[in-house]
Amino acid sequence: MLFAPAVRPDLITKMPATGADAIVIDLEDATPPNAKAQGRNNLQAAMRELADSIPVLARINDPTTPWYRDDINALPPGLAGIVVPKIETVEGLDQLSHDLGLFEGFIVGGIETALGVADSRALLAHRAIDAAYFGAEDFMADMGGVRTEANHEVAYARSQVALAARLGSIVVVDQIVADFRDDARFERECVEAKAIGYRGKLCIHPSQVAIANRCFLPTPDEVDRAERLVAAYVEAQAAGVASIAFEGQMVDEPVAAQARRVIELASD
Amino acid sequence: MLFAPAVRPDLITKMPATGADAIVIDLEDATPPNAKAQGRNNLQAAMRELADSIPVLARINDPTTPWYRDDINALPPGLAGIVVPKIETVEGLDQLSHDLGLFEGFIVGGIETALGVADSRALLAHRAIDAAYFGAEDFMADMGGVRTEANHEVAYARSQVALAARLGSIVVVDQIVADFRDDARFERECVEAKAIGYRGKLCIHPSQVAIANRCFLPTPDEVDRAERLVAAYVEAQAAGVASIAFEGQMVDEPVAAQARRVIELASD
Amino acid sequence: MLFAPAVRPDLITKMPATGADAIVIDLEDATPPNAKAQGRNNLQAAMRELADSIPVLARINDPTTPWYRDDINALPPGLAGIVVPKIETVEGLDQLSHDLGLFEGFIVGGIETALGVADSRALLAHRAIDAAYFGAEDFMADMGGVRTEANHEVAYARSQVALAARLGSIVVVDQIVADFRDDARFERECVEAKAIGYRGKLCIHPSQVAIANRCFLPTPDEVDRAERLVAAYVEAQAAGVASIAFEGQMVDEPVAAQARRVIELASD
Repeated sequence: MLFAPAVRPDLITKMPATGADAIVIDLEDATPPNAKAQGRNNLQAAMRELADSIPVLARINDPTTPWYRDDINALPPGLAGIVVPKIETVEGLDQLSHDLGLFEGFIVGGIETALGVADSRALLAHRAIDAAYFGAEDFMADMGGVRTEANHEVAYARSQVALAARLGSIVVVDQIVADFRDDARFERECVEAKAIGYRGKLCIHPSQVAIANRCFLPTPDEVDRAERLVAAYVEAQAAGVASIAFEGQMVDEPVAAQARRVIELASD
Repeated sequence: MLFAPAVRPDLITKMPATGADAIVIDLEDATPPNAKAQGRNNLQAAMRELADSIPVLARINDPTTPWYRDDINALPPGLAGIVVPKIETVEGLDQLSHDLGLFEGFIVGGIETALGVADSRALLAHRAIDAAYFGAEDFMADMGGVRTEANHEVAYARSQVALAARLGSIVVVDQIVADFRDDARFERECVEAKAIGYRGKLCIHPSQVAIANRCFLPTPDEVDRAERLVAAYVEAQAAGVASIAFEGQMVDEPVAAQARRVIELASD
Repeated sequence: MLFAPAVRPDLITKMPATGADAIVIDLEDATPPNAKAQGRNNLQAAMRELADSIPVLARINDPTTPWYRDDINALPPGLAGIVVPKIETVEGLDQLSHDLGLFEGFIVGGIETALGVADSRALLAHRAIDAAYFGAEDFMADMGGVRTEANHEVAYARSQVALAARLGSIVVVDQIVADFRDDARFERECVEAKAIGYRGKLCIHPSQVAIANRCFLPTPDEVDRAERLVAAYVEAQAAGVASIAFEGQMVDEPVAAQARRVIELASD
């Protein structure tokens, strides 16, 4: 999921070539107050140009802002979905459902405030929400803390949001890395996020897309090991044993389930 | 607490010699679907053979499985307790209480799913539950994440479960280490778990038992320091002071309470 | 916020010279049971001596103790506030409000038990509480865990309490470092706490005050960078762009908001 500012049609044009799963044209943080109308026009133009080559989503301004209504009214036909930032209350999501009426696209909710994190379980179980992301920059700005490379300050929130997404049976995507030159950090965060249960990473630069695609899919070595492990486990089960030693590791049902998941992800 | 597959009577026989506090004969993950009946028979045999030398518990299949009823009906007399995996709802625990009827053994509940972690406070305060464990492998399989040596991906859940256990006034035991050859990891995890508030560690191999026993009891040096600290604190209190410098550390009531606990644990 | 035992008037006298924002005269953990009355007398004397030079607060014994009533009745006029340790229940805070009657000082609540952490959201949103601190030593004593330098065992609680404070719109202050000779640890914990969203650190020794003051305020370099970042962002917005590359980092609204906060903190 690659973000592009709605006010940068020059960048938007290049998006399909990046390898991203989908692009998000951002009417919110990346579009200044004095250019919201221009951003909406650019979204319409981008849809005409790109919708055949890649799924296009729009990030709208949140319902508490003066731009929200106009954003909703300007959603172009064929939009794959919308991204709603800073979701915070069940009442807000009820209202969103109502406002969107018959909109049939995918709705991605952003958990990126203190209240959103605290109430993430109820928010991500709401019928209006089809997927979610955790927004670390906005969350820490709201907390009055400091973003660091180590990510300790977001560890609690990042895990709580992943848990809430699992309970709501939706996919959740991890925080951005604002320093788009730091590929090592981006890759490290992909590994962390995947371990916690995230399914992807928000990208703000084309160079991040390939790293995310590589990290969130299993490597050939991982797939190979998983296949051997599952084979050994199946053979043991047939022989009446469900707990085996496989290359020095105890393998029983949950470990086998993790291996099956690796194989499944690789074949998607 | 040392686990042994119910389908491996050869291993079960060796358990009393391992130094474990108790053994758990596993009818769940370590016993395959086609051998559940055999597992129950082995449990009965093991009880006759071992119950005089060590407390024997059985891990049954969870209430949502087709084996649960038969497991409950096959609990042998004299069983020290049962381990109930994947506890998730208060209703499920109410049902468990009802199903167990007059069973007088100890009941250990496993928190090892997303829902179990999220609702651990209510679950571990339930009257049906006498102790608990955190099951990292199953939890991460349920989250769709990846288990790592660093344990960052379970840090949130592991702490939340320890807190829930404290609020429910029950003892809680930490996750397994599946790689039973990696004693260094096992020892490191014992230290982590003890710091968080866990009281022991699930063992899946006899070699892990001695490490757990050593780690969860204070060392002579720790006991010695705690005794000197408490003595200095008591002396200061008698002189009307409750906050002293002891070997460069400020000691007041909570620090003294931690030292008293070290002495108490060592004398258990 | 620098703590001094109420039974050590020799130390209390030196407090104004330490550079602390406020001093807390401790009638609780640092005053032994047999010296509570003496502690209250010393508090009265300290108020007369120091109240003109520095804000003075008193930490009282918690409402479940036999000393609480006498502490409340002995609060001297002109006290800047009180620190209430181990707040745990909404009912307890209702009672506290009632007991304090027309007391107009600042009320700082201590979250330092398992129950306090678990219910911190409700506690820190209570109208009786104006600020809070997280007490790691008492919390871990209550959990039956072990305090370590790495602070992993308090990571969950420390983040949860910061989040609760943000939701209650109050300032929260971080745990003590009991080893008052270990300046490196104190400084590291200041950086950690500031990142999470804490606004200060409890000090138990005058040498810790300068470190805290330095760490919780932005450095000149940080202020300088923040000013340049905000200037570039404002210029871009005027030109109709709200997402820019600044020294290799993507800057949009939340990143700019963090920079504005740095400038604001520095000018307080």
